[in-house]
Amino acid sequence: MEELNFNTSPEFAWEMDAEDELARFRERFVIDDPDLIYLDGNSLGRLPSGTPTRLRMLVEYDWGERLIRFWNEGWFEFQQKLGDKIAGLVGASVGEVVVSDSTTTNLFKLAAAALRARPGRNKIVTDDLNFPSDLYVFQGLCEMLGAELVVVPSPDGISMPLESLAVAIDDQTALVSLSHVVFKSGFLYDMAAVNDLAHQAGALTLWDLSHSVGAVTMDLNAAQADLAVGCTYKYLNGGPGAPAFLYVRRDLQGELQNPIAGWFGQAGQFDFGLDYAPAPDIRRFLVGTPPMLSMVAIESGVNLLLEAGMEALRRKSVMQTEYMIYLWEQVLAPLGFRLNTPRDPRQRGSHVSLGHDQGLGIDLALIKEMKVLPDFRQPDNLRLGIAPIYTRYTDIYEGVMRMRRVIKEEIYKKYIDVKPDVT
Amino acid sequence: MEELNFNTSPEFAWEMDAEDELARFRERFVIDDPDLIYLDGNSLGRLPSGTPTRLRMLVEYDWGERLIRFWNEGWFEFQQKLGDKIAGLVGASVGEVVVSDSTTTNLFKLAAAALRARPGRNKIVTDDLNFPSDLYVFQGLCEMLGAELVVVPSPDGISMPLESLAVAIDDQTALVSLSHVVFKSGFLYDMAAVNDLAHQAGALTLWDLSHSVGAVTMDLNAAQADLAVGCTYKYLNGGPGAPAFLYVRRDLQGELQNPIAGWFGQAGQFDFGLDYAPAPDIRRFLVGTPPMLSMVAIESGVNLLLEAGMEALRRKSVMQTEYMIYLWEQVLAPLGFRLNTPRDPRQRGSHVSLGHDQGLGIDLALIKEMKVLPDFRQPDNLRLGIAPIYTRYTDIYEGVMRMRRVIKEEIYKKYIDVKPDVT
Repeated sequence: MEELNFNTSPEFAWEMDAEDELARFRERFVIDDPDLIYLDGNSLGRLPSGTPTRLRMLVEYDWGERLIRFWNEGWFEFQQKLGDKIAGLVGASVGEVVVSDSTTTNLFKLAAAALRARPGRNKIVTDDLNFPSDLYVFQGLCEMLGAELVVVPSPDGISMPLESLAVAIDDQTALVSLSHVVFKSGFLYDMAAVNDLAHQAGALTLWDLSHSVGAVTMDLNAAQADLAVGCTYKYLNGGPGAPAFLYVRRDLQGELQNPIAGWFGQAGQFDFGLDYAPAPDIRRFLVGTPPMLSMVAIESGVNLLLEAGMEALRRKSVMQTEYMIYLWEQVLAPLGFRLNTPRDPRQRGSHVSLGHDQGLGIDLALIKEMKVLPDFRQPDNLRLGIAPIYTRYTDIYEGVMRMRRVIKEEIYKKYIDVKPDVT
Repeated sequence: MEELNFNTSPEFAWEMDAEDELARFRERFVIDDPDLIYLDGNSLGRLPSGTPTRLRMLVEYDWGERLIRFWNEGWFEFQQKLGDKIAGLVGASVGEVVVSDSTTTNLFKLAAAALRARPGRNKIVTDDLNFPSDLYVFQGLCEMLGAELVVVPSPDGISMPLESLAVAIDDQTALVSLSHVVFKSGFLYDMAAVNDLAHQAGALTLWDLSHSVGAVTMDLNAAQADLAVGCTYKYLNGGPGAPAFLYVRRDLQGELQNPIAGWFGQAGQFDFGLDYAPAPDIRRFLVGTPPMLSMVAIESGVNLLLEAGMEALRRKSVMQTEYMIYLWEQVLAPLGFRLNTPRDPRQRGSHVSLGHDQGLGIDLALIKEMKVLPDFRQPDNLRLGIAPIYTRYTDIYEGVMRMRRVIKEEIYKKYIDVKPDVT
């Protein structure tokens, strides 16, 4: 990490934008209101400019004119082809990634498969920093299959030392499953180190990449990750609720069984045989007919990330989170904001969480009066997401200055007793 | 059923179209090629005219401009609101239907829930007429949970006498699950009679409505159905792979557990509690973030069916399948076509299956040279789907005449050794 002479002037932000090699990618997104500071690309990514046209063609030609014929003319192959593109963002190989179902359903499928692939072991190890839906799905699965869920507590609510995890992993552990980047604090795990730990104990690993894919460089193959799932509607800009992806290391594909046996996972799907015979490859982790409108909409965003390159995106993301933390220290810390994200960029994804005793009131004031969209996570966390493909340094500068105004001008006080919106 | 004096003249079909009270609904669909005879609405329904505009608004305004805010402005409620509309098509009550995941995944969720709600019973009863994906998902589930799948064979490959089913259902049966309309033959079960049979034995029922919803009248509540799932991309015209719906009778909702525990099924989803606490109502059968583009696209088609009314649609569907069977008898039976669908309309859904020794060659000739789109199901079945909301009597007439030409002019012979397309 080179040392940078950040400063608190607006000119600094302008200069950084002017020198940004990725700045031109912002024009490839639909941005109707230049004054809106969007810091929630980690919840729902922006609309790529290419997506509306692609969808119009899909609806009016592929569906409207070609009708059933388009299954053979493009839809059947799409889940794998798009998976192969996403493989290029996460360091997986062709044939190891497929797009299908929701992140939660994919976690269910792969965690159930892992438990059954390690007979005699009955523990899933995770942590209390994990996304709640991940915890829920493991709870439900363990209850159904009579397995045990071990939730390792974070000592500081922000990060997890490898040693704390190591203590929980033993010869009864079938699976270790964690969020690569933690949704609340932005803590980034050392994936290779955790894989190593799990493999030494004979366990498999299952990574949730939802908050890291498209924002953090990773190499699933080099890190020897076994399994992974991830979200396409955050940093991949795939659209609201777009289907998730899943990764299964090639040499594991033959031995793992999808618990939800469906016709899209069947070898010889259109023979309509009465007995389930799973496809030999990644397709066995597919289930039912995929929602093609939401599926096809993912591709434009993935193409943009591939074009920009993950190394460059990560470089910019680190610079921008550093800059935001610098501005926090200079401008916001004196106003009662706490940094709930690791300071070391090697332990940080692409969002910065700031705690404040008046967190919810500040969040609502930002949304309703200041044209800033962060998000809020209980009990006091403002999450400020940086999507390096379209977030400008001036967005970060302006966002921080508006947060300052919300405190200085006591605007948050109007929202102290307001019921929050659900997101 | 009134007796009708069908005849084989084209004038008869024109007159029927002219008198058809539902004919005006055809204009509410995008139909670019008036010469295409589309008889596959039972696989992928046509594009409603309202859908492209709705999707453009969704993409460009809801996603592009409102961004994360639109979750609170419409998306969060949508799965339930759309479910309530579909409830009106199947005789369910408000709060009993929700749209979510694929048909196969919904079958998995509800079958697993049923098995766990009947402890001490370990059998699922189904039949060999059921859709293969249904059989696969039950096989996978039974293997995982140590339950037994009983597949009752149809005596004629077309229909199922109630007595054959009755023999298989006993005090070990937790669940009876069948397709309401059978995908190959179009056989229509007497839903109330089967529910009765199952309930007498203490079992639950789970209906797959994929080939009946939107084409057949039904009353899930009056028939005392326990559980159901169904497809939205066939007769509901929701778009390729559009998410499926599921129904859980209200008084069962509290006692059934979704095996895939996810954050969209959580009570107080945005409290982000670490322990799964299922919503008290139908929402507990939701899982992950729904694919909103594919989800919203469903509504225009459902609105059209509600406007037309299921009674009128069923009346027309019965008349049209009767007409098709009449034309088969007069025109196609002498050319070697066999009727693989029940003749009694009370036992028939909205498609007619014709077997022929040269079935595949005929199917390919129809698609490639005759502008007729049926579909083909192994080993010899041409499925001719009638979607009463847009299928004309002249489509049926013209489709049959082109099938006749394929035989008379021996066009099918060119396709005898051609590898079939996968659908």
